[in-house]
Amino acid sequence: MLSKFRFFQISATFSSPAPRKKVHFPQIVAVTAKFRSQMGAASYGTSSGSVSKLIFRQLFEKESSTYTYLLADASHPDKPALLVDPVDKTVDRDLSLVKELGLKLIYAINTHVHADHVTGTGLIKSKVPGVKSIISKASNAKADLFVEPGDKICFGDLFLEVRATPGHTQGCVTYVTGDGPNQPQPRMAFTGDALLIRGCGRTDFQGGSSEQLYKSVHSQIFSLPKDTLVYPAHDYKGFTVSTVGEEMQYNPRLTKDEETFKNIMANLNLSYPKMIDVAVPANMVCGLQDVESKAA
Amino acid sequence: MLSKFRFFQISATFSSPAPRKKVHFPQIVAVTAKFRSQMGAASYGTSSGSVSKLIFRQLFEKESSTYTYLLADASHPDKPALLVDPVDKTVDRDLSLVKELGLKLIYAINTHVHADHVTGTGLIKSKVPGVKSIISKASNAKADLFVEPGDKICFGDLFLEVRATPGHTQGCVTYVTGDGPNQPQPRMAFTGDALLIRGCGRTDFQGGSSEQLYKSVHSQIFSLPKDTLVYPAHDYKGFTVSTVGEEMQYNPRLTKDEETFKNIMANLNLSYPKMIDVAVPANMVCGLQDVESKAA
Repeated sequence: MLSKFRFFQISATFSSPAPRKKVHFPQIVAVTAKFRSQMGAASYGTSSGSVSKLIFRQLFEKESSTYTYLLADASHPDKPALLVDPVDKTVDRDLSLVKELGLKLIYAINTHVHADHVTGTGLIKSKVPGVKSIISKASNAKADLFVEPGDKICFGDLFLEVRATPGHTQGCVTYVTGDGPNQPQPRMAFTGDALLIRGCGRTDFQGGSSEQLYKSVHSQIFSLPKDTLVYPAHDYKGFTVSTVGEEMQYNPRLTKDEETFKNIMANLNLSYPKMIDVAVPANMVCGLQDVESKAA
Repeated sequence: MLSKFRFFQISATFSSPAPRKKVHFPQIVAVTAKFRSQMGAASYGTSSGSVSKLIFRQLFEKESSTYTYLLADASHPDKPALLVDPVDKTVDRDLSLVKELGLKLIYAINTHVHADHVTGTGLIKSKVPGVKSIISKASNAKADLFVEPGDKICFGDLFLEVRATPGHTQGCVTYVTGDGPNQPQPRMAFTGDALLIRGCGRTDFQGGSSEQLYKSVHSQIFSLPKDTLVYPAHDYKGFTVSTVGEEMQYNPRLTKDEETFKNIMANLNLSYPKMIDVAVPANMVCGLQDVESKAA
């Protein structure tokens, strides 16, 4: 299994983007060249008082305790923006904020096929023409664009790396802000349900595997710089952020050896998720099925 | 009324700390000299990869929708820290985080006498010897230390300015991170219930005054740089942060003229706060009354 994850490991220099991506993801890869041409021209939160280029907002949906993240490049003329893990119930709030901040929403992205809430992706697409939905190819869900490990999702001069972190579901990915002098420092990892603050997602349905999750977190997330900010898809205790270093030291599950971790995950005795039978079918088509049937 | 607020206005240069503060707040003012001797030596979130000195965490208590903020100076040997608006129910969570991050909690601070939850200040003091409680003198509440407009609350080389923002209660203050080359940029304003994201605190009890609140927000918060981050004591819609510029443009109440604002506030028809008869008496002594009676 480990070799599989090594294959997924992304080069720190991003020197060799796979040419095949140009065919499948023109919107994503096209901006990459632009990013390179402007490298070194920008800076983040410097002591000289220059304003960070990244607009970043963390948003919370109380019922499912889900975090949605808004990211945008403030210095690009269009202020291109993306939403990570939007929820159907809070789409109007999120789109109002996008409008007030003067952003142009280009992507609605999911870390995985959620079982506890319906993604807002479909509603967003119906309300904002031109927005593309993105999910991992490994999820087997429908979307406008599919990403694989090593891909970059660009918005303006900023980008997110795609890292495969299966185990909660087979298609889970972690999106990580770019590694470069004009990308946000410290880096930010949107870990979905793979790594939660002092916890992790369950592994007992949707192709989940505790063995896979353990390897994913250790090889793809704990290999990031320790000051990388961890932004999960959920929190149930009121935490908003952690760091890779903190989770490597204090996560009560993932600091254990693999066998102990697997035993912990096998004995959680969690109840059947109340939303799963509604959420998963809707999310497999990124919420579009419901929108289409309502529009019909 | 306006002259009163002008008197409260804090000098941007901090050139003349009031000597009387040395008598009443030795812990607070003593560190100010140290801060000055090290000015210019530190930087925040630079593009060269140096780590920001400020450790910052936003924490949420679901039942009362209260935000607690943890701030610490990571570069100081002791990592001195403070908590703004801790809640009794989440004290153990907050103190665990303080311990895990290796911080030394020195202050537990309230923006005002809360009516919707019991402050965690008393419990914190009983669990962490040496922690001092802080509240405004104008609140008429009990605490170890009282602050007035213009005071600085120092933790390591960082500090919070105290700004008077009465109107929700007569003793409400806003704590703002320092203005200086080695203080966080953009600045951060902990506004309590004076200014909420796209809203504001009610003004119909505890000495509240819509006229006073309007003047407070306009003179003490909207006078800050537009990129100042607004961190309120509550949010009910899942927002975590705003900016002064955003609220000046989009706050549905405080963008109105004063008469319209007063009319809005006079016609909210809000129900009597369910916690007020428990919370206010407890918070007037910073939660200590309950702790002392339990210990007796």
